[in-house]
Amino acid sequence: MAHMNRAFVLKHRPTANLAAGDLELVETPVRELAQGELLIRNIYLSLDPTNRIWMSDREQYLPPVGVGDVMRGGTVGVVEESRSDRFAPGDIVMPAEGGWALYCISHERATRRVRMASGVPLTAHLSVVGPTGLTAYFGLLDICDPQPGETLVVSAAAGAVGSVVGQIAKIKGVRVVGIAGGEAKCRWIVDDLGFDAAIDYKNEDVGAALDRLCPDGIDMNFENVGGPIMDAVFSRLRLHGRMSLCGMISGYNEEGPLAGPTDFGRVLMKRLTIRGFIVIDYMAQAKQAYTDLSQWVSEGRLKWKDHVVDGLENAPSALDRLFTGNHDGKLMVRISPET
Amino acid sequence: MAHMNRAFVLKHRPTANLAAGDLELVETPVRELAQGELLIRNIYLSLDPTNRIWMSDREQYLPPVGVGDVMRGGTVGVVEESRSDRFAPGDIVMPAEGGWALYCISHERATRRVRMASGVPLTAHLSVVGPTGLTAYFGLLDICDPQPGETLVVSAAAGAVGSVVGQIAKIKGVRVVGIAGGEAKCRWIVDDLGFDAAIDYKNEDVGAALDRLCPDGIDMNFENVGGPIMDAVFSRLRLHGRMSLCGMISGYNEEGPLAGPTDFGRVLMKRLTIRGFIVIDYMAQAKQAYTDLSQWVSEGRLKWKDHVVDGLENAPSALDRLFTGNHDGKLMVRISPET
Repeated sequence: MAHMNRAFVLKHRPTANLAAGDLELVETPVRELAQGELLIRNIYLSLDPTNRIWMSDREQYLPPVGVGDVMRGGTVGVVEESRSDRFAPGDIVMPAEGGWALYCISHERATRRVRMASGVPLTAHLSVVGPTGLTAYFGLLDICDPQPGETLVVSAAAGAVGSVVGQIAKIKGVRVVGIAGGEAKCRWIVDDLGFDAAIDYKNEDVGAALDRLCPDGIDMNFENVGGPIMDAVFSRLRLHGRMSLCGMISGYNEEGPLAGPTDFGRVLMKRLTIRGFIVIDYMAQAKQAYTDLSQWVSEGRLKWKDHVVDGLENAPSALDRLFTGNHDGKLMVRISPET
Repeated sequence: MAHMNRAFVLKHRPTANLAAGDLELVETPVRELAQGELLIRNIYLSLDPTNRIWMSDREQYLPPVGVGDVMRGGTVGVVEESRSDRFAPGDIVMPAEGGWALYCISHERATRRVRMASGVPLTAHLSVVGPTGLTAYFGLLDICDPQPGETLVVSAAAGAVGSVVGQIAKIKGVRVVGIAGGEAKCRWIVDDLGFDAAIDYKNEDVGAALDRLCPDGIDMNFENVGGPIMDAVFSRLRLHGRMSLCGMISGYNEEGPLAGPTDFGRVLMKRLTIRGFIVIDYMAQAKQAYTDLSQWVSEGRLKWKDHVVDGLENAPSALDRLFTGNHDGKLMVRISPET
């Protein structure tokens, strides 16, 4: 008997914050599997700022999700049926295209097996030992090339990426200042994660705080936010400073171009390097990163939080939390039970 | 008997184009040499866009020239008196700080000997086998890392730096499009220097021309100009594109910040790398560059033009030519005769 799928379909491209009706939850029967394909029941759906980019038709790094198509999203799930020799029912996997859906069909070649380790929950495979951990790892190590004693400023520092960036930087001997929203997040990154200092952008002037905390300037900026926060950090980058541009979430709910630094001339005068990246560029090198991240987790040197919202139907409203900061750790939706 | 020096002193910081009275030509006796110092008679003075930056107090990469100080400038000259064992009268040298002056005093440690080669005029040591050649060499090879078959767009392409950038890129198997002002310059870079195409920004729409000439986008931008020309190139950089930011001359005659690209989000979406540089960062590696540049010149693979304006007193008015494009090749002033 065919499984019935439940999936969010993009009905209209949002023009500002995601609105009711932009996505519609539809039920459709799951088609038959072809040779090499797997039927996967999605368990957790990753919610990421970039989801909002995919809903728009701005110039972007993947094709926008088509109007009428199932919304794209990263998931971890369990194989329910297999027409592949490589996977069996019960295997825990990450399909390349999970989607905002209860079920997805994935080819064996587009499916990665999740290797569970003791003490590491399944949710962590969407966060610290998953895509956001990889993002932090490569964006910091490959682009910023941190040197002991240097100063890093990371924005969205209590977020899934930023919190890992800061901890890896500490492992590398870097002085880390995080910018986060609210006292609780600021306390968490300093007291629990070991950041050297935090700036609460909701309650203090970021520029003044940077002047106080980084009187000799900033060597590295791991940037997740864009807009005025990015500009405040950029304008204090010192000679040969590096900016790893991972995201510009402050602009994703608007249409039109995403503004850059006010004084681009500083790129020249201070001989700065700015590089944008997307974690998919690094998948060929992911194995070493997973090894390092898993080891740091097992040693207790990397901490993280996962914020799980229950029920696929709540995915659209949950997404908005990324833009208000009303979440605590890596945001994801539990679509179906782990067991 | 003391030599009398003639030197331009900065009287006021210009607020727009350099104005009469901003620099004043003064005569002062040359002081006695201390041990290790040389008295150098400057022969050629290099005029460069960056001179205008030094006159301003905008944030920059060297201290601004102080009001009341001799204007800074690169020169090549001849040793007239020496209190150094390393240099003798008659030696052709480049002092670290030549200045807009007939004479300068330079310490032996801040003085580089010019090794003349047959067929290479002295002027070329301020251009193709001098600082502008080095600028082209490192800004292209180190920052853009050109690969055969890629497409490079260089602005100010008939200028001292741009013309060498394009030719080195051709040596490296790159497709080169130059942006220059006027038909004669465009013809020169294509017909004589071997660029694949030229865009005359004074007579055609740069964006439309780029669309026509680079339908698949642009891999590398060697940027000398900034402003709308930079934005036109930037907005067409393709996946993993690189921008080597060498100059932003279009903004140097204005005060305030130098504007960057309109849609900075492309840095993220296209995973671009932007790096600013100043040739002084590379002086430790200069030897290999001089060797390569000299060899390419001797093989006829690098061509260049020097534009010599006679008389130190004409330096201020000559500088303006850099901003109007009313010059033909590396701009310099003949301060005194070669022999």
